[in-house]
Amino acid sequence: MSDALTSKPPLRVLALAGGVGGAKLAAGLSHLLNDRLTVLVNTGDDFEHVGLHVSPDVDTVMYTLGGIANPQTGWGIAGETWEFFTQLQTLGGPAWFMLGDRDLATHVLRTERLRRGETLTTITADLCKALGIRSSVLPMTDDRVRTRVHSGDRMLDFQHYFVREKCAVPVSRLTFDGVGQARFNAALHDLEQGDGPLAVIICPSNPYLSIDPILLLPGLRDWLMRVPAVRLAVSPIVGGEAIKGPAAKIMRELKVDPSAEGVARHYSGLVDGFVFDTVDRHLAGSIAALDMEVSTTQTIMRDADGRVALARDCIAFAERLLARVEV
Amino acid sequence: MSDALTSKPPLRVLALAGGVGGAKLAAGLSHLLNDRLTVLVNTGDDFEHVGLHVSPDVDTVMYTLGGIANPQTGWGIAGETWEFFTQLQTLGGPAWFMLGDRDLATHVLRTERLRRGETLTTITADLCKALGIRSSVLPMTDDRVRTRVHSGDRMLDFQHYFVREKCAVPVSRLTFDGVGQARFNAALHDLEQGDGPLAVIICPSNPYLSIDPILLLPGLRDWLMRVPAVRLAVSPIVGGEAIKGPAAKIMRELKVDPSAEGVARHYSGLVDGFVFDTVDRHLAGSIAALDMEVSTTQTIMRDADGRVALARDCIAFAERLLARVEV
Repeated sequence: MSDALTSKPPLRVLALAGGVGGAKLAAGLSHLLNDRLTVLVNTGDDFEHVGLHVSPDVDTVMYTLGGIANPQTGWGIAGETWEFFTQLQTLGGPAWFMLGDRDLATHVLRTERLRRGETLTTITADLCKALGIRSSVLPMTDDRVRTRVHSGDRMLDFQHYFVREKCAVPVSRLTFDGVGQARFNAALHDLEQGDGPLAVIICPSNPYLSIDPILLLPGLRDWLMRVPAVRLAVSPIVGGEAIKGPAAKIMRELKVDPSAEGVARHYSGLVDGFVFDTVDRHLAGSIAALDMEVSTTQTIMRDADGRVALARDCIAFAERLLARVEV
Repeated sequence: MSDALTSKPPLRVLALAGGVGGAKLAAGLSHLLNDRLTVLVNTGDDFEHVGLHVSPDVDTVMYTLGGIANPQTGWGIAGETWEFFTQLQTLGGPAWFMLGDRDLATHVLRTERLRRGETLTTITADLCKALGIRSSVLPMTDDRVRTRVHSGDRMLDFQHYFVREKCAVPVSRLTFDGVGQARFNAALHDLEQGDGPLAVIICPSNPYLSIDPILLLPGLRDWLMRVPAVRLAVSPIVGGEAIKGPAAKIMRELKVDPSAEGVARHYSGLVDGFVFDTVDRHLAGSIAALDMEVSTTQTIMRDADGRVALARDCIAFAERLLARVEV
């Protein structure tokens, strides 16, 4: 079969991603696929800070694919310095959101170009090019979407919840301001024309905070179902916990089963296949019962090799599913 | 006489200043006078760079009075780092205007507050307070004035002339966009009410680039002549050359005698006294003939002591002139 596959045009992948976990798998995919990878990134976390437009998920994906991400923090640039941030505080500026000196170049350039009327898509493409990234990184939309975290009667901007409150506030509901009016990134339509089979991979990002805002963009879910492609999701929950971030905590607060099966259920009807960790293999039967193919593997990406290994597993799984569809 | 003076309310000073030379004398005055000093600073050099509002002369005065100025460059902050600036270039941003990591905190905070509708005066006051500055630093206006350098048919924005072209282009004319509509800083009126005699000191800044935009603000020259004060200027030209910057070069290009006498002539009718360097004492007769008192001293400020020494000389000269007026 692999002989037959090599004579065909190679696989193209559209990855849906939020922050750290999504960015890691995207980096593994990018290593294997180069310009055959498009990453569609959540922008619901975007916000304005000290007058600068910050796109945390776009930046995490961009820095991770560019090989300059800080592996410790999951955000920002490796070996970052904090002279600006320290002086900002001396001058009475806000201290709750850290801005590194190098990271700041992204925000300043992007903010200026957005103010001049350029799109986030164009700006991101140029920044990626400057960082030597060969894959396409697409913001999910060029329109304004803002994730709001509701905790009872209280509503918090996403970064206030995530950074200032360190996710300590229990989540009762999530809303995405503007998502109903936002147009999904039109560059996705280019994928309809491209040469080679297409796989959509929902990365192991937070389904509620990172992937839902993408899927809620009007027409996007329909487009994903309509485009000739095989669709997979990778569980961000391993053994009942998130590798990083508040996914499991939020699932519990939203009264959802915080497990790979809970995630699979969330994507049920959308994906053809589901990748989850070997430690959760006892869930294979109940996940398969959701009408999706299952694949278990080592999903925790501890280093660059781990990212590529998971990417390779996902690609192989997608190719198996594609072959089955064709048979 | 000094016994008599000490029993009177102490002298207050309004200093008119541009960049380096002006800032140095202002720092000396600030050391001696604390909150009895007000510095009125040129904003014709202000410009937008990568979306940030930069006020070079206000910053130089602020950093110098705050004791954090870079003594080598004459701009920016001592011990500055350049991580942002390096990354900005990696990302394809402009390289011609250097922005240090710490300096950037000023620009980012100021830009955000200006966009929110606050005045440059309010923002500068807060920044000065944060930097521990007890004197008042006032931008000459909160309205937009922009210095343009004309070289034959060519017109350059000031920073393009000063930084990008390194003043190499010959100046045929200077204009100050918006100066005719700008309102001089209303906080100056507070000086009419204050306790103690007042001296206006035109610092050794470039008369054409730094002081003229201030003096051209509608009503300011009249106000300076009307307010009960003694008025002095300090020559930025020593032995036919500027200590720093293009003052002498510009004077030659504008066909003005590049000497302390040329400067005195420029301020003739405005000032009661003129301070210039001992090396130019042979010009004392011709400067006195311009109907101003003269005082020669060591005007080159090599270090903090030099700044305080010149400030002390200026204050003593102002007090002599005030005593004479009162006699």
